[in-house]
Amino acid sequence: MLENIRIVLSHTSHPGNIGAAARAMKTMGLSHLALVNPKKFPHNEAVARAAGAEDLLVNAKICSSLNEALADTVFALAISARHRNLGPEPIQARVAAAEVLALAEKGIVALVFGNETSGLSNEEVQHCQRTVFIPASAEYTSLNLGSAVQILCYELRLAAFGGHPPVQTKAVPFASPLATNDDVERFYTHLESVMVTTGFLDPQQPKRLMSKLRRLFGRSDLERDEINILRGILDAVEKKIRR
Amino acid sequence: MLENIRIVLSHTSHPGNIGAAARAMKTMGLSHLALVNPKKFPHNEAVARAAGAEDLLVNAKICSSLNEALADTVFALAISARHRNLGPEPIQARVAAAEVLALAEKGIVALVFGNETSGLSNEEVQHCQRTVFIPASAEYTSLNLGSAVQILCYELRLAAFGGHPPVQTKAVPFASPLATNDDVERFYTHLESVMVTTGFLDPQQPKRLMSKLRRLFGRSDLERDEINILRGILDAVEKKIRR
Repeated sequence: MLENIRIVLSHTSHPGNIGAAARAMKTMGLSHLALVNPKKFPHNEAVARAAGAEDLLVNAKICSSLNEALADTVFALAISARHRNLGPEPIQARVAAAEVLALAEKGIVALVFGNETSGLSNEEVQHCQRTVFIPASAEYTSLNLGSAVQILCYELRLAAFGGHPPVQTKAVPFASPLATNDDVERFYTHLESVMVTTGFLDPQQPKRLMSKLRRLFGRSDLERDEINILRGILDAVEKKIRR
Repeated sequence: MLENIRIVLSHTSHPGNIGAAARAMKTMGLSHLALVNPKKFPHNEAVARAAGAEDLLVNAKICSSLNEALADTVFALAISARHRNLGPEPIQARVAAAEVLALAEKGIVALVFGNETSGLSNEEVQHCQRTVFIPASAEYTSLNLGSAVQILCYELRLAAFGGHPPVQTKAVPFASPLATNDDVERFYTHLESVMVTTGFLDPQQPKRLMSKLRRLFGRSDLERDEINILRGILDAVEKKIRR
């Protein structure tokens, strides 16, 4: 089950933290690491801190954007200490771990960690379907990046093997495989284009319209068939307008 | 409750790990650190890795023996990845955390972590009343010392306070009141009408299209503002078609 989980580190400044994350992952049985624009990588500090987990560094996927790191995923969770206006409702790490495992049966699930100082940008968070927080002291919330990865991987391991009952999946009719991130992004692009064509969205003054729509559809865990229906509606609208 | 818990690091080789442990403790609301014969301390690497938790280093109790570090405690737990013939029966971290909290009502409880390479000696383990293990992959059990401290402190925090959401940093949450059932039904009617107009939905052969869309939007718990956006898009489409 842990095979379908990817740890994504975005814009990491310190290579030592990448090594620490790899070691944290391997101790808990995770192996897939993706790095979005790491500041320094490969780097001997990463190797040193990885200790016996150097194989994860060697096999790490280096990406130039978060979209690339999420392209083939069916679900992504943003790890963030901050509560955002725009992002999805935050859930705590232990709850998230159970959900991740259930989703990982359907495809690749990503956990996304931001830069050591600035965390994840709002834009990055909006690429994810959930925000996850790690409970911490109100006086000092500044978890080390490697420690945050360690806690999440530990929770995943316990959720997978710790004898906890699995999350009950909703018994729903029509369920199809989950849409991939790429599918969902193409839908957003299509929707935006139709909104511009119809004059509903002014590209000069987009306000927070797309953020609000991302928040709405992000809550739904869109399936592939549903994306096809939504895109079909948009296609039909475009054809009708052109005629 | 966390006030009565002491983290004891015995014979730590790398000062960076002492700093990491201090940071891990402070993020979870623990503050009492004791060091038994640290190899290098005080040290600037400890300060660097402690980040904002330097106060714990300043207040750390330096001891020349484990006995000294445990002198005023009512209970001590040895953190160890190895199963010992001699030591007490090992319990896992999550179970231990609940026990520690219960004991901490009666006096000071110590969690004892050994050297990075050799762990705790059998003699040290026998000074403790329990052995605690952190679940890990059988292929690679080598947790970093700071990570081990982080996991235990995290479990203690959750045992003490459960998982509370983070303090909200920005004022206004994005969420609006939930839409009423009437609002939602009017949206479905509107959506259906646009789908018929554009030819996407054939009223003679509706199949399960509306059921599928109801299932999708039904999962989202639509908010009033979101309904307004969705209806706004539909209005704009209708206007553009009529023109």
